[in-house]
Amino acid sequence: MGESVFKGTEIVGTSDTSFSHAIEVAVARARQSLRNLSWFVVKEQRGGLQQGRLEYQVTLAVFFKLEPGEQPDANGD
Amino acid sequence: MGESVFKGTEIVGTSDTSFSHAIEVAVARARQSLRNLSWFVVKEQRGGLQQGRLEYQVTLAVFFKLEPGEQPDANGD
Amino acid sequence: MGESVFKGTEIVGTSDTSFSHAIEVAVARARQSLRNLSWFVVKEQRGGLQQGRLEYQVTLAVFFKLEPGEQPDANGD
Amino acid sequence: MGESVFKGTEIVGTSDTSFSHAIEVAVARARQSLRNLSWFVVKEQRGGLQQGRLEYQVTLAVFFKLEPGEQPDANGD
Amino acid sequence: MGESVFKGTEIVGTSDTSFSHAIEVAVARARQSLRNLSWFVVKEQRGGLQQGRLEYQVTLAVFFKLEPGEQPDANGD
Amino acid sequence: MGESVFKGTEIVGTSDTSFSHAIEVAVARARQSLRNLSWFVVKEQRGGLQQGRLEYQVTLAVFFKLEPGEQPDANGD
Amino acid sequence: MGESVFKGTEIVGTSDTSFSHAIEVAVARARQSLRNLSWFVVKEQRGGLQQGRLEYQVTLAVFFKLEPGEQPDANGD
Amino acid sequence: MGESVFKGTEIVGTSDTSFSHAIEVAVARARQSLRNLSWFVVKEQRGGLQQGRLEYQVTLAVFFKLEPGEQPDANGD
Amino acid sequence: MGESVFKGTEIVGTSDTSFSHAIEVAVARARQSLRNLSWFVVKEQRGGLQQGRLEYQVTLAVFFKLEPGEQPDANGD
Amino acid sequence: MGESVFKGTEIVGTSDTSFSHAIEVAVARARQSLRNLSWFVVKEQRGGLQQGRLEYQVTLAVFFKLEPGEQPDANGD
Amino acid sequence: MGESVFKGTEIVGTSDTSFSHAIEVAVARARQSLRNLSWFVVKEQRGGLQQGRLEYQVTLAVFFKLEPGEQPDANGD
Amino acid sequence: MGESVFKGTEIVGTSDTSFSHAIEVAVARARQSLRNLSWFVVKEQRGGLQQGRLEYQVTLAVFFKLEPGEQPDANGD
Repeated sequence: MGESVFKGTEIVGTSDTSFSHAIEVAVARARQSLRNLSWFVVKEQRGGLQQGRLEYQVTLAVFFKLEPGEQPDANGD
Repeated sequence: MGESVFKGTEIVGTSDTSFSHAIEVAVARARQSLRNLSWFVVKEQRGGLQQGRLEYQVTLAVFFKLEPGEQPDANGD
Repeated sequence: MGESVFKGTEIVGTSDTSFSHAIEVAVARARQSLRNLSWFVVKEQRGGLQQGRLEYQVTLAVFFKLEPGEQPDANGD
Repeated sequence: MGESVFKGTEIVGTSDTSFSHAIEVAVARARQSLRNLSWFVVKEQRGGLQQGRLEYQVTLAVFFKLEPGEQPDANGD
Repeated sequence: MGESVFKGTEIVGTSDTSFSHAIEVAVARARQSLRNLSWFVVKEQRGGLQQGRLEYQVTLAVFFKLEPGEQPDANGD
Repeated sequence: MGESVFKGTEIVGTSDTSFSHAIEVAVARARQSLRNLSWFVVKEQRGGLQQGRLEYQVTLAVFFKLEPGEQPDANGD
Repeated sequence: MGESVFKGTEIVGTSDTSFSHAIEVAVARARQSLRNLSWFVVKEQRGGLQQGRLEYQVTLAVFFKLEPGEQPDANGD
Repeated sequence: MGESVFKGTEIVGTSDTSFSHAIEVAVARARQSLRNLSWFVVKEQRGGLQQGRLEYQVTLAVFFKLEPGEQPDANGD
Repeated sequence: MGESVFKGTEIVGTSDTSFSHAIEVAVARARQSLRNLSWFVVKEQRGGLQQGRLEYQVTLAVFFKLEPGEQPDANGD
Repeated sequence: MGESVFKGTEIVGTSDTSFSHAIEVAVARARQSLRNLSWFVVKEQRGGLQQGRLEYQVTLAVFFKLEPGEQPDANGD
Repeated sequence: MGESVFKGTEIVGTSDTSFSHAIEVAVARARQSLRNLSWFVVKEQRGGLQQGRLEYQVTLAVFFKLEPGEQPDANGD
Repeated sequence: MGESVFKGTEIVGTSDTSFSHAIEVAVARARQSLRNLSWFVVKEQRGGLQQGRLEYQVTLAVFFKLEPGEQPDANGD
């Protein structure tokens, strides 16, 4: 049927190479999950300098599909 | 007294009937949780067409009350 | 190197004293977590009156560092 | 002539049925006014749970036409 | 002392000449008030065509100073 | 059942002490009203300097419950 | 392969029944197009009163898939 | 009946005189259309300097009424 | 002199390589147009997963210069 | 080659005549600079009343081109 | 005359005590300037944890009055 | 102690290669400064076409740490 429920979570990936690498880092981690990553949205792109080293930081909202009966805050979420 | 902590989570409910049904789908899933759903905010209303079928998608921010001592990211959250 | 992943969660702290106390309540709860709280952003400041008593409510987005291999939605998150 | 002045006011309608009923509740109250309701804009859709009962809440900005000479803050407004 | 309270109200002024005339129409009406208009902010500029005639519409948030003891919703506001 | 209507109004409280005092000034004035203040939202925090004195200014949207039959723009509102 | 281009257009559907009917009116018109409607986003919900009749107005951003070689502004677009 | 559909398009008018002239330039062009311009919204006001000459640029969202049966993306739109 | 009119259109380019490739895909299509592409603005960056394949999606607002006398909605636009 | 750097600064121009005069006041001051003003964006339009006199205030973000080797915060900026 | 020009600058004040102290830190620094600080706006409130110590960070837009003839980007600004 | 002050400045970097190169151009210029660049935020990504050549333009807010006693608008800033 047409009824499904997805859960969104914000994650921030960092890289000292580029914003696109930071996105790949975050998406790769999200895809290691047991659940299916369905889509994501880029929310913010920032950079930080620590001890002269530039770090790229990208905030993503990532969305996973919940299984039927699975609860959005199960197990302490 | 007066001190409590709530945790927010984004969920997306879908329906092939209407936006109000998609909201009911999402809220019903959130209410199955062991925690008490306290309030929610409608964030976005979108629609998608796949193989000629229209799907209504509503993104909600839902908020649950944390019990005293319960941690917002317990159990891997 | 340089690659890390953080997870964000929205929490709401309340207090019947002040907004700054409501922030402290929320941050204190977040710091009880086993994970390291890394930073937070104030999202909204609201107040509610119930039975003549004023309650300050602050919504924060809080960000925790994920350990290598830890998944953003592990254990039902 | 082409010169007229309208006044806007925010109202929140609630319903335990649906968002569309909450909008009707708010618009019906606004239309009881002696002034002419001219248009409205939906600003926010939220829901609350109190004692297990779901309440739909819709914030509208409603706009009334002021008569010539009528002041936007007459009588304590 | 440094404690004062202002009340804001949204008004829309229209003109068939220009946006600046529509602003003057709205401000002039606000200044007819017995209270002191303190400041305003331009919120939106729109236009409408009705029977081939162009109407400029400007939404302003206008702010009045409340006298000590005066209530923001006195007399039905 | 379940149907109520609230009215929102923007107010600005000022203080030469702090933002939290400016909020208290605005809320105290709103609570002097005959109507019940239900909730408020902080919209903006600004400061002004006049003759070397710092003034804190906080804009709040405050919401009052309308009695059944009471109109959102009664008495010139 | 993974390269495609979609074109977005804003449309406003109106109804004197409800917002959900206004959405259906707009989506139905968009689906009469020769191109494939792919998804849409609700941008704004407003209402207008003309001669005592309430009209619901919904602004949608609708997105169509462009065929390979088809140009986003072909034929005067 | 209450069912109609409007189509929105963004246009930018420029002038070396003023923002109000740039708006007139854009609206005049939109009104040359065979379709009826119904309303517009000012989205952005920018200026550019090229070879020492100042150019005022105003972005408008303009809305036209579609005839019954007319499609929002007919003829390559 | 100084008076010109531009038309904006939203397009979404996709790629299974990267966001920058998705932008190139969209811009390349826009440049195939008979009209001159003048500038564009990145509006949103999203990603989707379908059958395990990651798709990058970028929404651009692209602006074309209209020739004198050319109408923003000519030929069904 | 295609690499250049611009610096943005916010300025507020005021006038007791009109918003367009306030913009001219701000732009004129920016153009007195030794650097080349490249473009500006209107950020906010407000008005203030002091001793019964209306003052128009426009906030602009103005952008200057930096010479090669010139630093965005040279000389205390 | 009614013509003046102000310059805005973003500053971030930090404190390990509270947000209000961080605001005082930033405003105190701004007031040490030779120019007159005229007003400020709170833009963002964040917190960071470094080595277990909580740091409050407040971003302010501060506005100074320019003297007649003074240029917004004099001396490298 | 925990008290420090940072100053933010908007800069725009351009490149005819890509957005990531435009960011590098802007960050490199900011790092040539005598002050320490602390962090930056991507604000806008635009593109322009001039004589058939595509130029990528990225607006960054960059933040520098002020030394104790250093003033945010020293030397004409």
